[in-house]
Amino acid sequence: MIKILNLKLSPPSLKDNVGDADRLLAGLKKELKTDDVKIDLKMLKALPNILRRCNYKIKAVLSAGRDGFGLVKTTEADKKRVFAGIAVDLGTTMIALALINLETKEVMQKVSFINPQVTIAADVLARIHYADNEEGRKKLNRLVINGINNNIKKLSASASILPKDIYCLAIAGNTAMTHFFLSLPTNYLIREPYIPAVNTPPIFKAEEIGLELNKFANVFVFPNIGSYFGGDIIAGILFAGMHEKNEISIFTDVGTNAEVVLGNKDWLIGCAGAAGPALEGGAAKIGMQAGAGVIDKVVINKNSGFKISTIDNLPPIGICGSGLIDLAAQLFLYGFIDKRGKFADSVCADRLIIKDEIKHLIIVKKGDCGANKNIMISGIDIDNLIRSKAAMFTILETITKTVGIDFASLSDFFVAGTFGYFINPESAISIGMFPNISIEKYKAIGNSSLKGAILFLTDPKLIKTVDKIRDMITYLELNVNQEFMSRFSGAKFLPHTDAYL
Amino acid sequence: MIKILNLKLSPPSLKDNVGDADRLLAGLKKELKTDDVKIDLKMLKALPNILRRCNYKIKAVLSAGRDGFGLVKTTEADKKRVFAGIAVDLGTTMIALALINLETKEVMQKVSFINPQVTIAADVLARIHYADNEEGRKKLNRLVINGINNNIKKLSASASILPKDIYCLAIAGNTAMTHFFLSLPTNYLIREPYIPAVNTPPIFKAEEIGLELNKFANVFVFPNIGSYFGGDIIAGILFAGMHEKNEISIFTDVGTNAEVVLGNKDWLIGCAGAAGPALEGGAAKIGMQAGAGVIDKVVINKNSGFKISTIDNLPPIGICGSGLIDLAAQLFLYGFIDKRGKFADSVCADRLIIKDEIKHLIIVKKGDCGANKNIMISGIDIDNLIRSKAAMFTILETITKTVGIDFASLSDFFVAGTFGYFINPESAISIGMFPNISIEKYKAIGNSSLKGAILFLTDPKLIKTVDKIRDMITYLELNVNQEFMSRFSGAKFLPHTDAYL
Repeated sequence: MIKILNLKLSPPSLKDNVGDADRLLAGLKKELKTDDVKIDLKMLKALPNILRRCNYKIKAVLSAGRDGFGLVKTTEADKKRVFAGIAVDLGTTMIALALINLETKEVMQKVSFINPQVTIAADVLARIHYADNEEGRKKLNRLVINGINNNIKKLSASASILPKDIYCLAIAGNTAMTHFFLSLPTNYLIREPYIPAVNTPPIFKAEEIGLELNKFANVFVFPNIGSYFGGDIIAGILFAGMHEKNEISIFTDVGTNAEVVLGNKDWLIGCAGAAGPALEGGAAKIGMQAGAGVIDKVVINKNSGFKISTIDNLPPIGICGSGLIDLAAQLFLYGFIDKRGKFADSVCADRLIIKDEIKHLIIVKKGDCGANKNIMISGIDIDNLIRSKAAMFTILETITKTVGIDFASLSDFFVAGTFGYFINPESAISIGMFPNISIEKYKAIGNSSLKGAILFLTDPKLIKTVDKIRDMITYLELNVNQEFMSRFSGAKFLPHTDAYL
Repeated sequence: MIKILNLKLSPPSLKDNVGDADRLLAGLKKELKTDDVKIDLKMLKALPNILRRCNYKIKAVLSAGRDGFGLVKTTEADKKRVFAGIAVDLGTTMIALALINLETKEVMQKVSFINPQVTIAADVLARIHYADNEEGRKKLNRLVINGINNNIKKLSASASILPKDIYCLAIAGNTAMTHFFLSLPTNYLIREPYIPAVNTPPIFKAEEIGLELNKFANVFVFPNIGSYFGGDIIAGILFAGMHEKNEISIFTDVGTNAEVVLGNKDWLIGCAGAAGPALEGGAAKIGMQAGAGVIDKVVINKNSGFKISTIDNLPPIGICGSGLIDLAAQLFLYGFIDKRGKFADSVCADRLIIKDEIKHLIIVKKGDCGANKNIMISGIDIDNLIRSKAAMFTILETITKTVGIDFASLSDFFVAGTFGYFINPESAISIGMFPNISIEKYKAIGNSSLKGAILFLTDPKLIKTVDKIRDMITYLELNVNQEFMSRFSGAKFLPHTDAYL
């Protein structure tokens, strides 16, 4: 997004009376080999004194736009300064920021915090309803903007810079979140035919968004493909680099929703799990968020029972989504649950109790629990997990079958997202959530939305790449895909009803 | 500057889930045959409801920029509304506004008023010194912006529209005035090598300039060629159309300064009189401004003496610049002054009096004067007039000789400006201010700066034309022109020392 140039201009004379701004722009255009370099009013006002103070030897910071560059800073060429940028992953639940030194391209500081909009509602749909009136929309917008501003202040302070040293911000998020970020109407996002106010937002000035950065800073919002396929996925593809590969790879982001992209340098096809009926509960929502004392791994040993490991090795207090997948895989392997996910009474034996008329399997007894309660999993939890994994697999199956690709021919299987980061691929394969391909093809790439935004900040050429990725993606609407539902029914077994895997 | 389109978009569906803004932009791009159509944040927020309310049949108002179009309004296609624009001639002394109906291209209302900056200082130089500190610069800026805003309100009211119905403003003025309008530093304009902060200002949003128009309105400032060659002249060339002619023509704007442009469709060369030492007093400044009772024409009759005519035929109260030229021509013709401009005592006889040790010629006796005083012209007035006419002629001579053109081969001699409008070409030829070419070649085109701005508003293609005119002009710096001073000395006679005219 940003280009930093050192430039030596020839000073004006009676024979060369070109205006200050025009002189600088001509120099920049020559250097950047483009006719499109823009300057704004505030910069025009400051420029005459800057140019003379630095004797026409300047350092220029430029922000790449779709139609060229915009000047965001000019200063003395030899002055020591930090030029910083902010990358943002705008999640429904968590927001992650990274502060980048634009010259060294290093990450200076990182922080993540709970999206302050959760005080209004945890889920997207409820927030969209809350935003139906303008007051609500404005409140949701203020919450997220203030949250980002406050955390930028903290990040800046801990990196010993000022918010005014930040010259650009790139933000990737799902479509609803970026609409809230821009205070755009969200009501048509959730009504058929599910239309965003904008797919490709223009580049904004920080101050028109209400962000407290340098007054010339630009804000880039990653484009979306549709209401359920957001800029976070475009950023993820950018980071994974699948748009540059000859081989076909697949990208999945398992978060609140599940988005999947398949393709290579010539084509990309994408679809989103919010279109599937079962992911509304969301695999990531079963269990609790990963944290100290949370069970992230379960192994069943025939003799010694359930062996668990917890984050930071603290006494267990609950189980997270990835631990659940491990658990379900082991339960199925050792016959605690059948292929429909129903508890086998004889195997479960005294671990099975009835609570609120629902069967629960005790994983950790009250005495061994850090929270002084039985850690249990209910038949409903298993059911939700199976519906989630079925949706995940069905999306993977539908998208590959649509283009006639076998799972085996994929070169890489990128698993994005914090949740995806903790998934044990072997367990996910065991329960039929992921296809049975070589384990080494699975690549957990973490927060690829944030990483894509970081990458974007450091290279002005990537704006064209992002638009190219956006244009390359064919969006497969699962709602209107008649095969999806029959595949989904078949996937609601452990691992599948299909024989071929 | 403005294009108005009626557009029918196909409504979205599950199979065509393109976002609202992207759908509209795609339609506009197709219609306008360009990839560059922009939309801003406020429009993005409003668009989803607008599109659905008007069932995807919309009227779009677009403002042409250097790199494409910007959307400034979308509304129901069949709704009756006025889309208006404002053209401004920003003069040092007077500001003229015209309110334009952008669809019919008619001028709805016009007004002109004294530039409120005259309360700070009448002349440009004093204003520039006043703007040396930021407080002063801001005050000068506020004066002109408030003056324009107030008069826009009045114009709108008398045309029964609202300022928010105004979608664009095009402003042409000299370089210093446009710098004040944009609150740009002016201190380097008057210091060698005379450098403007900017030659070609970008297109601004009305609100960043402080103008109270529609919130999406764009503001176009005509580019300048240098500190002494402003956008008013570019607008004048645009209006005169000399950049499109095969024949060579000349354009002069005789105001506080005198600017001259020579050329045709292939080349243009320009210079400005502020570079000449004598026009600082300015031909237009001798005498008073044209108004009721002001002498605008003088004929000397051997028998009956001085025959004068006044504006509105009221009793004479003074003489204006163009009347002075007539007067000087007649005085020279009838021997009242010699070729050096000195009074001939014997011819002047009892019309000549000494006042404050300076010779004065009585034109109208106290008894016949509407202001109960002798209307007189002093030796110094004649001297100033001769220096002014000499500067004017020297500029004309220098510019034509530089490219080796005879006055006789010019197809048109455009005389712009209010002052130029009243000049009698025969008198101007008689005193050697204008060259001795056929009278019918002289074309008084009035306020060509305002007329150029009006023209500009109605045709989006003219933004490229204006930039082309700007690029075509070679600026001839008279300060460094050694021949200028010797020519100037020769021109300080009536009509010239040269024999060839």
